[in-house]
This record gives sequence, C-alpha cells and structure tokens, in this order.
Amino acid sequence: MLRITTYNWVPVFAQGYVRDLPLRWACEEMSLPYELRLITRQDKDSKEHRKLQPFGQVPVLEDGDVTIFESGAILLHLGEKSEILLPKEASKKARARTWVFAALNSIDPVVREFRAAADNADKQEWAKLRQPQALENMKNRLRELNQWLQGREFLEEQFSVGDMMMTIMLRNIEPEILAEFPEVAKLQATCEARPAFQKALAAQLKTFAEHSP
Amino acid sequence: MLRITTYNWVPVFAQGYVRDLPLRWACEEMSLPYELRLITRQDKDSKEHRKLQPFGQVPVLEDGDVTIFESGAILLHLGEKSEILLPKEASKKARARTWVFAALNSIDPVVREFRAAADNADKQEWAKLRQPQALENMKNRLRELNQWLQGREFLEEQFSVGDMMMTIMLRNIEPEILAEFPEVAKLQATCEARPAFQKALAAQLKTFAEHSP
Repeated sequence: MLRITTYNWVPVFAQGYVRDLPLRWACEEMSLPYELRLITRQDKDSKEHRKLQPFGQVPVLEDGDVTIFESGAILLHLGEKSEILLPKEASKKARARTWVFAALNSIDPVVREFRAAADNADKQEWAKLRQPQALENMKNRLRELNQWLQGREFLEEQFSVGDMMMTIMLRNIEPEILAEFPEVAKLQATCEARPAFQKALAAQLKTFAEHSP
Repeated sequence: MLRITTYNWVPVFAQGYVRDLPLRWACEEMSLPYELRLITRQDKDSKEHRKLQPFGQVPVLEDGDVTIFESGAILLHLGEKSEILLPKEASKKARARTWVFAALNSIDPVVREFRAAADNADKQEWAKLRQPQALENMKNRLRELNQWLQGREFLEEQFSVGDMMMTIMLRNIEPEILAEFPEVAKLQATCEARPAFQKALAAQLKTFAEHSP
C-alpha cells in the first residue's frame, strides 16, 4: 500500500498547509488507499528520516520499491497511475507537468518571499522594508496567471495535477489579495470545492487533532 | 526539429545563466539537433509570446505538437527521449525526477532569496539587513545536500536530469561559498566538465555574442 510520511502534529497556523495535502488529495481523487508513517518534528533530523528526505522535510512517499520526496515529484508519480489526474497523451501530459513546475518555480517563490516579509513585518525591519516590493512581485505573477485563465475553467482543458499543485500554492495567499485576481480566485475555489480535496483536508486536520500535545 | 525559444541577447552578467542552458545541455548529451527561435527582451511581453509562456519568460520548447515552458518540465520531456538522462525503470526514474524538483523547489528558493539580498545589499537597506540570515538559510540547505552526497559521485547512482538541474541552480552561488561544501562543489565541477555542458554553454554565449547591440 502507498505510505505517506508526514508529521503527527504541527502548530495550528500550519495545520491544513502541510505538504502531505496534495498527496492525500491525489489519493482521494483516484480512490487509492494510503497509510501514514507519522513522525514528530524532532524525528525530522534523525538519520533514519534524512535517508528518506535529505532536507529533513515532509512528505515522503513509499510505493513498493519507489521511495521519493518533493511533493511535485510525488504528484507526477501518483498521477501516472491513471488518466484521472494526468493524461497519457504526450502533449497533454507535458502541459499538465508544465503547470506543476510553474506552481512550484514561478508562483511559489514569489509567494514565499511575500510570506517571509509579510509575516515578519511587525518584528523585523528588513521585512517591513521589503514587504511592498514583495507584494508587488507576487501580484505581477498573479496578474499573468489571471490573464492565462481568461475563458478557461482549469489551467488546461481538463483538471490535472497542475491545477492541484497550483491550488496548494495559492492557499498561502490571503483571500483579500487573491480576490483582486478573479480568475485565479475562481480556480482555487473550484479546486478546493472538489470532494476529494475536502476529504484530504479533513484527513490532515484529523491526524493533527488526534496527536495534539 | 526541436525548437528552443530564448533571448537573442542579455546583459553580460546574465550571459551563461539564461535557462535555455539546461535544454541545450540535454540536447548535447543526447546528440539531438535543435533550432532557436530568438526573441528580444521587448518581445517577451508580446501577445504572441505570452501565448507560449504566460509569465513572459524563456525558455519555451516546441517539439512537434508539444509546446511547453518551465525548464524543469522541459528537462523531463527531453529526458524521456532516451535512457541517457532519465532511466526508464520506475523507481530510478522517480528518483531522478525527485532531484529535478529538489533543485527547483528546495535549493533554488534559498539561492534566489540570498541573491536578491546579496546583489542589492549596497543599494537597499532591507537587503543589507536580510543578507546574513539569507546566507545562513542557503548554507543550511547546502550542508544537507553535502551530507547526502557523501560517498556518491552523482545525486543517484547514475548521472541524470536531476544532476543537470542541480548544477544549473548551483551556478548562481559564489565559488567561495560553494567551496565550504566540498561534495556539492565536486558535483558541480564534475557536471560542468562534461563536454556536452561545455558545448551548450559555448552555444549560449555565441548566440549572445552574435546579437550584441
């Protein structure tokens, strides 16, 4: 059976945002059962875990003799199990994969930089000074994404791992900011409304509730 | 024939660092011919280019009916053309892909944040204040990567697209800093010494030399 390594508990602000979420979501979309290997945040620095994840992060996926980390790589691996999340036809598959990378390398970096500035602006001088430009950089990317989404329901013709990874990245942006980019906000709302997403989110929150210290 | 869209010219500091480099490199490793579609930096905002690349960046790859952007997605697409850069066996393929994502989403973000701070530290107050922590964050990741590389020549048993993307990311770090992480520095040196890398780098520099304004 598929085995997902993730934390047994994280502080409330991180609950619903741990990156096992896209993995659980993919499993729910394809009705694939999975089991959990839960670690504490202290375990992440153990030799055992570093063998599975050199950067001491979660998630890790074990699937028979395949052991991989990086949620993008895992999403491609899971996606290839059917045509539900990743078309088999070469050109469509390539497009869906492109959006997984775009989410992680064109959207995530500007979101991360904005979060680092915004979340520390009241405590650190650099963050207060940086926040306006970091916000502007993020908005520029969101504007471009919004333009692409004009007249489309999803990033490409059909829902795919690309939309999933994009949704996961967009969750880190305040709804008030996203609302300025209606097509982007709509994509996120459409994807988060999927029963499989809701099940995956509830499952992550349940794990943390069960292991609350 | 494969067609790579890139800039006809960029300022000297960016020459050798434009992300068509991993694509040219993959083509050289597999002895695949490619042609160029050169655009100016003004063209990147044209409607025509935005249809190919919603964020107005390069590179774009056209391969028959496949048109994709994001250098990571393109590297996977090219890698699948043979076993030279991406093993066909499921578990090895999954590992190689994991490292492409690790380069782009675990290494690149800390390098980018360091570069943004370091390159602006003499001009902007936020950058001067942020530089020490950004450097520390980057070094932490490099230390973890260095640990993984102990006793290995490449990130996995054989050279793959994962090593290629990692090399491309590491090129954005000063050699003096990389030298503190000898296994990482060795990986980069080994990969950059490959004839295919050298050919690809020379080809990128030649394009810019030919279009120097």
